[in-house]
Amino acid sequence: MDAAEFRRRGKEMVDYVADYLENIEKRPVYPDLEPGYLRSLIPNEAPLEPESYEDIIKDVERVIMPGVTHWHSPYFFAYFPAASSYPAMVADMLCGAIGCIGFSWGTASEATLISLLAARCKAVRRVQTINAKKSESEILSKLVAYTSDQAHSSVERAALIGAVMMRKVPTDNRYAVRREMLKKMVEEDKAAGLIPFYFCATLGTTPSCAFDHLTELGPLCNEENMWMHIDAAYAGSAFICPEFRPLLNGVEFADSFNFNPHKWLLVNFDCSAMWVKERADIIGAFKMEPLYLKHENQESGLVTDYRHWQIPLGRRFRSLKMWFVFRMYGLKGLQAHIRKQVALAKEFESLVRADKRFEICAEVVLGLVCFRLKGSNELNQELLKRITKSREIHLVPCQLSGRFVLRFAICARTTESHHIQQAWQHITQLTFELLQEASH
Amino acid sequence: MDAAEFRRRGKEMVDYVADYLENIEKRPVYPDLEPGYLRSLIPNEAPLEPESYEDIIKDVERVIMPGVTHWHSPYFFAYFPAASSYPAMVADMLCGAIGCIGFSWGTASEATLISLLAARCKAVRRVQTINAKKSESEILSKLVAYTSDQAHSSVERAALIGAVMMRKVPTDNRYAVRREMLKKMVEEDKAAGLIPFYFCATLGTTPSCAFDHLTELGPLCNEENMWMHIDAAYAGSAFICPEFRPLLNGVEFADSFNFNPHKWLLVNFDCSAMWVKERADIIGAFKMEPLYLKHENQESGLVTDYRHWQIPLGRRFRSLKMWFVFRMYGLKGLQAHIRKQVALAKEFESLVRADKRFEICAEVVLGLVCFRLKGSNELNQELLKRITKSREIHLVPCQLSGRFVLRFAICARTTESHHIQQAWQHITQLTFELLQEASH
Repeated sequence: MDAAEFRRRGKEMVDYVADYLENIEKRPVYPDLEPGYLRSLIPNEAPLEPESYEDIIKDVERVIMPGVTHWHSPYFFAYFPAASSYPAMVADMLCGAIGCIGFSWGTASEATLISLLAARCKAVRRVQTINAKKSESEILSKLVAYTSDQAHSSVERAALIGAVMMRKVPTDNRYAVRREMLKKMVEEDKAAGLIPFYFCATLGTTPSCAFDHLTELGPLCNEENMWMHIDAAYAGSAFICPEFRPLLNGVEFADSFNFNPHKWLLVNFDCSAMWVKERADIIGAFKMEPLYLKHENQESGLVTDYRHWQIPLGRRFRSLKMWFVFRMYGLKGLQAHIRKQVALAKEFESLVRADKRFEICAEVVLGLVCFRLKGSNELNQELLKRITKSREIHLVPCQLSGRFVLRFAICARTTESHHIQQAWQHITQLTFELLQEASH
Repeated sequence: MDAAEFRRRGKEMVDYVADYLENIEKRPVYPDLEPGYLRSLIPNEAPLEPESYEDIIKDVERVIMPGVTHWHSPYFFAYFPAASSYPAMVADMLCGAIGCIGFSWGTASEATLISLLAARCKAVRRVQTINAKKSESEILSKLVAYTSDQAHSSVERAALIGAVMMRKVPTDNRYAVRREMLKKMVEEDKAAGLIPFYFCATLGTTPSCAFDHLTELGPLCNEENMWMHIDAAYAGSAFICPEFRPLLNGVEFADSFNFNPHKWLLVNFDCSAMWVKERADIIGAFKMEPLYLKHENQESGLVTDYRHWQIPLGRRFRSLKMWFVFRMYGLKGLQAHIRKQVALAKEFESLVRADKRFEICAEVVLGLVCFRLKGSNELNQELLKRITKSREIHLVPCQLSGRFVLRFAICARTTESHHIQQAWQHITQLTFELLQEASH
């Protein structure tokens, strides 16, 4: 769907929305279907080839609407109101288009926290099974979690919220955690009377897109009864391409896995997907059952009550946009998007490598290039300052082995080779001026 | 804005969005403005009278766009991608229209958790200031939080996540917490060596829309160094009407306050607003500062970094829809909406009171009517079962003083008197059949 088609389809959708809301009271307010009805109506796999918009929109009435409880029907009197107004909907269209992420991107943080809390609950129960006399607070004070020294700040924050210790595991020269490094810390902590219970592995770290060694770390976590969560927020989308799939080897040892389709899979913010091996581990940690939230199907196993899986009770109907995207692009279209962006990163890498004043600071695996001017941190800080000040392109820095490094990430769906070339020309122009001034 | 205007404005917005995205690379990718620029461009108060859509849309380019970092510019290379595609945007329009709340409404839960975690952090520091030898885990094991036995299940869940004890305070015959009840529990717990640190008051409980007595409870919490959080998720919207404002008396004693504009203020889900008296209490509990999230203005005090205020790092640009709604309705329009819905609840209450087979179970203050058939819980369960089965209206139950009660909440913006009359006719018809069968 290009801009021209969006103009047409968007306007049709405006009419559909208005028709839906003007006639909502003619629909049964509450669905007359058994849970699980959806399974037979949709294919088991995302489509390989893109589908037509007509086919998708036909399925809205065939597949989606029969299962909807119409919260905006005037015959809906349950719970409390869920607000709805036309201005808010128009605004939300604009909100979706701007698609900015308030002070950074998102909800992989929540997935990390949820997995840590589930692991905490499981560990407390396990220890109490062995030693019933130990109090919960005594056990909590001894729990220790681990993550890479390259992991996202949200991992450390999860431990802070969960009131447990968190240790940073040092990484190798490719910024990845290896088995021996984690094993050493775990042994030391066990000898000191602590209880290792959780390891958050990262596939595609934020600073340099490094990959922890799951095939080494997974068996260790399993041996030590430690929950292994995988944070693949960015890189996870790339695993739809067979050539990147080996980076995921070892996932079979994980207890939970998360990635953000809203990062690299063309689904507007926010949309974060989490898998968990034993759903009972998550549900057991949070379940609450007040009467006003009880429903007929909760014990049948037919319904997945996601409210037990997360911190907020409610969530937007975010899978809808994922469904549209999967169908409109097809697997092939999504793979083409990932591959194109990786190629653009490689193109930028080549430009940097061809210029002897610069160096590449980490292997370019996906769409991120970490680079810097050979020389001091101050020099690179000054270069970034000038890039930021000129406002033609936008980069952020990171720190790798104590060095100030520039991160060049391929982001927008619309970035093409000529944008890369122009960005590099701009960077080299600023570099030329900077080095000339420095030499005077 | 009615459906006809939405058809026109929505289509204009589709064109605006397409124009924006087709020409995004002509815009400076990064804003050239000082933080705080917005203050002089917008009024200090929400408008009293509705404004025209033209005035609002003009302000998008004048007020909003100059401050936007264009995440979808092909010159944006910072962080990682934030996905965007036309199909996802079309889907999100539909998502906004359906506006269903996945397994219940939402994010007041997060506000409660955040306030509890901030209070926990503050309490630990306070105790350690007095007694530096006490370990954090020792203090944590003694912390105790309180809330009404009528409070939402998310409050209890927050304590579970925060790994602290939570006690339920019994309520009076109007389902409200009074000073003496809380004081008694606090005294008992202190005598047992525990540390009371948090009370979550409710204004407008979920079962019966009861109001805890803030003017009694606030001073007690202040005396006892207990954080008082107010959960006004539903009722909070009503405080824009002067006649309901007295229900808020005592708010000045609170440390934090939350309500959900997505419940009753015409802003589509999700949108939850939280105030905190001392922002440092919240920020101190969560702050993390990795290099890739650092920015020039963070020490200036000009920027409010909401990422320190919440669990996810990112958030959607949700204030946009609130801004549209405030301006399109004006204070008067929003007040009229609240008052109309309260009047509809009173109308339903009169119908129930006029029928001697029924009883009203709690005072009708806002838009919720709690009622039941005089008789056994089983009888009322059977009535609700038949209401649910016939699918003409949708209600959920609650429990009040051990009795099974039906909750009739005025929800949809489009509910009118004739819907209420029809709903009551439907209920009485089912009641007639039920009682006739029961008498045979």
